[in-house]
Amino acid sequence: MSFRDATALEPVGPGRYRATIAEGWDIAGNANGGYLLSILARAVTEATGKPDPLTITGHYLAPGRPGPAFVDVVTHRIGGRHATAGATLSVDDRPILVALATATDLSTASGPEHVETTPPPVPPPEDCIPIEPTDTFPPPFMGRVELRIHPEDAGFARGTKSGKARMRGWFRLRHDEPVDTLALVVATDAFPPTIFNADLPVAWTPTVELTAHIRAVPTAGWLRCAFATRFITGGYLEADGEIWDGDHLIAQSRQLALVPRG
Amino acid sequence: MSFRDATALEPVGPGRYRATIAEGWDIAGNANGGYLLSILARAVTEATGKPDPLTITGHYLAPGRPGPAFVDVVTHRIGGRHATAGATLSVDDRPILVALATATDLSTASGPEHVETTPPPVPPPEDCIPIEPTDTFPPPFMGRVELRIHPEDAGFARGTKSGKARMRGWFRLRHDEPVDTLALVVATDAFPPTIFNADLPVAWTPTVELTAHIRAVPTAGWLRCAFATRFITGGYLEADGEIWDGDHLIAQSRQLALVPRG
Repeated sequence: MSFRDATALEPVGPGRYRATIAEGWDIAGNANGGYLLSILARAVTEATGKPDPLTITGHYLAPGRPGPAFVDVVTHRIGGRHATAGATLSVDDRPILVALATATDLSTASGPEHVETTPPPVPPPEDCIPIEPTDTFPPPFMGRVELRIHPEDAGFARGTKSGKARMRGWFRLRHDEPVDTLALVVATDAFPPTIFNADLPVAWTPTVELTAHIRAVPTAGWLRCAFATRFITGGYLEADGEIWDGDHLIAQSRQLALVPRG
Repeated sequence: MSFRDATALEPVGPGRYRATIAEGWDIAGNANGGYLLSILARAVTEATGKPDPLTITGHYLAPGRPGPAFVDVVTHRIGGRHATAGATLSVDDRPILVALATATDLSTASGPEHVETTPPPVPPPEDCIPIEPTDTFPPPFMGRVELRIHPEDAGFARGTKSGKARMRGWFRLRHDEPVDTLALVVATDAFPPTIFNADLPVAWTPTVELTAHIRAVPTAGWLRCAFATRFITGGYLEADGEIWDGDHLIAQSRQLALVPRG
């Protein structure tokens, strides 16, 4: 099922949409967090008429399993350039994800360019490690997104971790589906956790909160991604992400996640 | 007026609080954005019973001028460890700031420590440049917070910019008022804009969205702060912040702000 179909919304009332948490976008039965947030991003853009989620923050309340869901959007302000709205994804009348977003039309964005850094070094996709879905590991979600991992960051799968809490590689959707600004939200949370490469026990790190800044509309092809964690303290970690389209930064992300207490 | 008094809330109904946007916390008449967000952080902690705003995101809808205001809190989930709620700051029934936050009790936080970096280099406070309030510039807000700017980043005030979009220095509240986790939210937005030091026209950069992660409770004394901007593109910029208490990172922030189109 395409990303577009997996995030489709049916209006059923003022600010209310019927959604489906699609099969196959999960990791061990729980839907990927970026995918869930992209459903809310789509709802905000549909409700406000602004096509791009300039900045969206999601707070994760409970895991999302495949099946029917509802989205409720509360619009706070619609201006000429920006629209701000809250959105809630609910299953069985229970909220599982709440979000706050400001949307805009990035096709009209303009301003001075002043970039302090260059794209992170990643070998070309053909020299990176593909992650293909199997029945066991990696999870079904990897059949929906296509990832190529930087060889230096792929050692965790063979038990040879780099010792650095980072993950770099390439992202695109399967079957040549174009990545729009909504699918970019998925890209911010699609890679294996940075902590997989740290000198710590490998563990899933449940997201508490994820914020994505969408800075430009992607063109076609592979997107260069880099995620890094610098601070693992007090039972939490952050993961900072950058997504580049050629020489252009098109998205930044930061998430706060739980570190298992072991 | 102390920070505590300037963010005081009076419960007036279920999830509803009377607040005051205090005099003197403004820049040219508009209240500082971190200060406004700290009012919502306090409301969330009071409404949920969790004392610390672990992660809070605010979207700025309109400037806030000193005077009476109301806060409405909608609680999404209260669990054993985390509570998530939305909050809106309104003046004359018009929302000026909406926020989404997850609160916790950081005094019980624990977990492995794994830090990839060291505190940013800043000379001791006595060797940095104080910013004292005057009737004109700097703004009245500087009478509420006490800042010392890294000499390398203070040139903008003398017309000798570093050319690097960063701002480093020390933060504390005036009159020895302790900085709690709510006042840390103010610290994430208290310094002059990073762009003041870039090779661009000096301009205020209105905040679209600010997210703060509060990772630990501060102890006493000056807090070391560093803010940097790497991507000025398409009419927007991000500013990433770190706040350190001695050798410990205690907060991170990122804001998305508007770059004047000139």
